[in-house]
Amino acid sequence: MLIPPRGIGGAELVGYANDKQDLLKRLRRAEGQVRGIHRMVEEDTYCIDVLTQVSAATKALETVAIALLTDHLAHCVAEAAREGGDVADAKIKEASDAIARLVRS
Amino acid sequence: MLIPPRGIGGAELVGYANDKQDLLKRLRRAEGQVRGIHRMVEEDTYCIDVLTQVSAATKALETVAIALLTDHLAHCVAEAAREGGDVADAKIKEASDAIARLVRS
Amino acid sequence: MLIPPRGIGGAELVGYANDKQDLLKRLRRAEGQVRGIHRMVEEDTYCIDVLTQVSAATKALETVAIALLTDHLAHCVAEAAREGGDVADAKIKEASDAIARLVRS
Amino acid sequence: MLIPPRGIGGAELVGYANDKQDLLKRLRRAEGQVRGIHRMVEEDTYCIDVLTQVSAATKALETVAIALLTDHLAHCVAEAAREGGDVADAKIKEASDAIARLVRS
Repeated sequence: MLIPPRGIGGAELVGYANDKQDLLKRLRRAEGQVRGIHRMVEEDTYCIDVLTQVSAATKALETVAIALLTDHLAHCVAEAAREGGDVADAKIKEASDAIARLVRS
Repeated sequence: MLIPPRGIGGAELVGYANDKQDLLKRLRRAEGQVRGIHRMVEEDTYCIDVLTQVSAATKALETVAIALLTDHLAHCVAEAAREGGDVADAKIKEASDAIARLVRS
Repeated sequence: MLIPPRGIGGAELVGYANDKQDLLKRLRRAEGQVRGIHRMVEEDTYCIDVLTQVSAATKALETVAIALLTDHLAHCVAEAAREGGDVADAKIKEASDAIARLVRS
Repeated sequence: MLIPPRGIGGAELVGYANDKQDLLKRLRRAEGQVRGIHRMVEEDTYCIDVLTQVSAATKALETVAIALLTDHLAHCVAEAAREGGDVADAKIKEASDAIARLVRS
């Protein structure tokens, strides 16, 4: 699908622009969580304790996903809806597919 | 939150109006699946076979949820986005909360 | 896979025998929840309110699944582990596959 | 809960001992995926493309969790079941709680 250009004059505008710093912080922390799980396995940590950390990291990534989706709906999808037509339909379909992947992952 | 009236002249218009028959059919089938699981337990069916049916019923409900959400985005949210203002913001927030509940359920 | 006979003298013994009444009650309630969702769609209830009930029904089924799995581990898998050998390996593999289906559903 | 000592003579034996190298490789890859998502956000990548990678990383972590659980059942829980008594009950309860956390995350 052709995604229409976003932003004007070279400036990229993504739906999460206002939350970017918060998202980056969360992702840095999630990366640290996964590295911590790697270290736990290296050090032969008890299975259940490793699992608890895997659940926590999964939850952290889901929180990131929901924040991204909310921003996407509030900006990209809302804007496409205002423009209407095929672009709006394509954006809704795309967002819905992303939600389906998330619910099933 | 105040949900603005939907439809004109008394006719209720919901986002899933066009998919209503399909949704009703899926829900009738999901109800039958749950009743089937009840019968399996009554008849002391082997745990794993019961579990397989529980996973299938859960998946069926998730498919219903994703269909409902897609219709909701395509109609209610898109319409609110076109109107803009506080109603649009409230609708986006409401949809995003519903997605979060779904991802975490 | 050949599941070895369970129970003696014709009496079927399933892992959830002690929780059977509780499971049946939960399943009856879940069936009522799905029927309630069907009625909501029939009556053109607002999408988000329908979605909230779908999430609740999904959660109810997950609770049933976790109860079934716990009983299965505590009885069928534990017993197979005590017997050891191929039957034990097959039971562990079977339980693990059921968990994977559940996590991904 | 008191977790009984594992291994003899100081050597720690965890359920995933045989799969350790595979788990470490998967975790290293998952860490790279999360770092990749961080970079995508830094570079203002389109929301939906970021979301696709978040779903992939979540799935990768779930695969790690299921592998850990399977090993845990096959070794720690099976061993406890053979010993029987309170330790066995505690191990089953502990595994079941970990499964519940996983299903709900």
